[in-house]
Amino acid sequence: MSEEFLKVARAAREAAAELAPLPRAPKDRALRAVADALEAHAAEIVEANAEDVERAREQGTSEAMIDRLRLDEGRIRSVADAVRQVADLPDPVGEVVRGSTLPNGLELRQLRVPLGVIGIIYEGRPNVTVDAAALCLKSGNAVLLRGSSSAYSSNTALVRVMQEALAATEVPAGAVQLVPGLTRESVKELMRARGLVDVLIPRGGASLINSVVEESTVPVIETGVGNCHVYVDAEADPRLALEILVNAKAQRPSVCNAAETFLVHADIAETFVPMALRALEEAGVTVHGDDRIARFGEVVPATEDDFRAEYLSLDIAAAVVDSLEDAVAHIRAYGSGHTDAIVTRSQGAARRFVSLVDSAAVAVNASTRFTDGGEFGFGAEIGISTQKLHARGPMGLPELTSTKWVYTGEGQLRTSEGTVIAGAGC
Amino acid sequence: MSEEFLKVARAAREAAAELAPLPRAPKDRALRAVADALEAHAAEIVEANAEDVERAREQGTSEAMIDRLRLDEGRIRSVADAVRQVADLPDPVGEVVRGSTLPNGLELRQLRVPLGVIGIIYEGRPNVTVDAAALCLKSGNAVLLRGSSSAYSSNTALVRVMQEALAATEVPAGAVQLVPGLTRESVKELMRARGLVDVLIPRGGASLINSVVEESTVPVIETGVGNCHVYVDAEADPRLALEILVNAKAQRPSVCNAAETFLVHADIAETFVPMALRALEEAGVTVHGDDRIARFGEVVPATEDDFRAEYLSLDIAAAVVDSLEDAVAHIRAYGSGHTDAIVTRSQGAARRFVSLVDSAAVAVNASTRFTDGGEFGFGAEIGISTQKLHARGPMGLPELTSTKWVYTGEGQLRTSEGTVIAGAGC
Repeated sequence: MSEEFLKVARAAREAAAELAPLPRAPKDRALRAVADALEAHAAEIVEANAEDVERAREQGTSEAMIDRLRLDEGRIRSVADAVRQVADLPDPVGEVVRGSTLPNGLELRQLRVPLGVIGIIYEGRPNVTVDAAALCLKSGNAVLLRGSSSAYSSNTALVRVMQEALAATEVPAGAVQLVPGLTRESVKELMRARGLVDVLIPRGGASLINSVVEESTVPVIETGVGNCHVYVDAEADPRLALEILVNAKAQRPSVCNAAETFLVHADIAETFVPMALRALEEAGVTVHGDDRIARFGEVVPATEDDFRAEYLSLDIAAAVVDSLEDAVAHIRAYGSGHTDAIVTRSQGAARRFVSLVDSAAVAVNASTRFTDGGEFGFGAEIGISTQKLHARGPMGLPELTSTKWVYTGEGQLRTSEGTVIAGAGC
Repeated sequence: MSEEFLKVARAAREAAAELAPLPRAPKDRALRAVADALEAHAAEIVEANAEDVERAREQGTSEAMIDRLRLDEGRIRSVADAVRQVADLPDPVGEVVRGSTLPNGLELRQLRVPLGVIGIIYEGRPNVTVDAAALCLKSGNAVLLRGSSSAYSSNTALVRVMQEALAATEVPAGAVQLVPGLTRESVKELMRARGLVDVLIPRGGASLINSVVEESTVPVIETGVGNCHVYVDAEADPRLALEILVNAKAQRPSVCNAAETFLVHADIAETFVPMALRALEEAGVTVHGDDRIARFGEVVPATEDDFRAEYLSLDIAAAVVDSLEDAVAHIRAYGSGHTDAIVTRSQGAARRFVSLVDSAAVAVNASTRFTDGGEFGFGAEIGISTQKLHARGPMGLPELTSTKWVYTGEGQLRTSEGTVIAGAGC
């Protein structure tokens, strides 16, 4: 491991130990200081960002991508406000998750504690740098940030401003660190930093996430790949199904909780599919349908790849299925375990679908677009986990914590006959 | 991956999908059928076990190890009773962890669901084969068992008996599988079975656990390495400290929650260390002490390795420290994050120690030996996690589950202005 990397990782580790025992008030003060500093230094951040934008333009990056990269004073104000909102959220650390007095008198409590050092690997927008740092600090964690090389100047400036602001607070400035270097090597170092980093959260496309999962020896929380389904049951209200389908697909096609496939029960296909093809066409959506969908209108023939695709665009795959169980089998085979919806008037069908679909979220008669930390009332979100360990679905502040068991006694000793109290026999 | 391995892994995966939606009653009936079958087939299990015992004896295995390996009718009855106890425990699956009605009318629930397929890699005693299978089945999971090659005949017989018993119940027989093959290759296959296996739990020594953590692409829950500390604070009652120390070290030295190091505050060293050396000697314990311990009596000089060691024997490392903070620094540097205890009369010292020590469990004025699923009231335990993700400390049935979010509506659609209900505008 490079000296450069070890230096920031160790600094984060030391800061984590100092930060972990802090109660809420000093953490909130520090977050507000960070927000104020971002606004006060907006001009220098915009200047650093201009370098990234210019470099992107020279490299022929699309205007849409450049817009995602760009920071102006208005956007920096929004970023600062988001930090203030995190400060307003309750502190998960110290929450007593479970507790009891054991039969032998030991007082047992399970407390939420910070994870320690969290590594975040992300693409795209520089606002993630600040959002992720704020969520980690609030939950008592130090953070190692490894953003996109396209935003390196912006991220460097943002982290410098945050560190300077923290230096005047009780939160150690070392708790926010940018991973040095622009190459793949620095991502590899992060993935091999077992013992220095407690968890890695990759945020980005499927290939980034897969490579981290394959190569990391640090525990990983997978986020965000969403091949979401809408299943229109035989007992669905066709108009309700139509509105849910169009909303799930087209309201914001670039996000992970947008629908990428719809499945229609054969018994309702004749009614529903022609309506759906018309409505989707009106919404500008291209349908990639199987043979049984194609009977009802013109579609692009669907391949296996279409059913696996996370389009993130105005495209959707479609198939007719013979039963709810076949819909579930399709979702198990092709889905990504993010969010899958059923539209049905049947209580029994809803119950079976909820029970059989093995995904982070299951929606009944609602758009898939609601799988979101904000919508769930978490106040903020670090990502949406599609794995089963530790956290599943939208991750808020409690998902950035671990727990610690504490038991307090008066000299409890364990013997083969049960507990005795020290000194009691004397 | 070998066809042989894929066959059992796929069978487990299919069984997991069938098992997951089952409610408590059929699972409990299946567990009771397994317990009855183990007793009914005790003779053939003992016969298979005799092959393992004979092989072990030929290989010159110690009598202590052979005793751990041996099954007789009495031990099989105990194993069967343990299965019945698991049947009596509450079912974690279906528990509503959180829930609310969102402002837009969506009814949101977070439910406990099984993890899916759990792989267990373990050493030693064949009773683990049955214990682990019972805990996995009760929590709705299929299990892939990879036991020690020294117990292969016993494990084969136990799994056959369990599968035959399950075949007559609603729980699919494929939910319990022995990983075929005796070589390291079969462990490797398990570690690379991402997508087929949801989580791996290695149970055994540090080298087994480290190799699984390093090589596995399947998520891992680390268990059981315990380098536990007893810190005797300046404000400790020396007699209480002495009894806790001797209990923590000597009551059962071979287990992970036994103490492996004691640290003594300099202010109490003169009183405490001579007493401790005498009492430990009487208990048959060899003390590996630093220079400052050696001033008070004869000890084996401690090296760095002693402070890192998980002895699991009647040995203990010892050092004098100048402050509670130094004790914490020592524990952070050398500990394994299992259980660390403080003995003190000072509320402030206890509070600081609990807050600063970053371990799965912290004991105040009690023996480290209480970190245990049974003692904590879990009824059963699959192991003790020393990692921070997903589960930390003793793992009972809820730790063998994930969660699923379910939201139910009446046509909720997400728009940039907030939620609208489908059809409401028509």
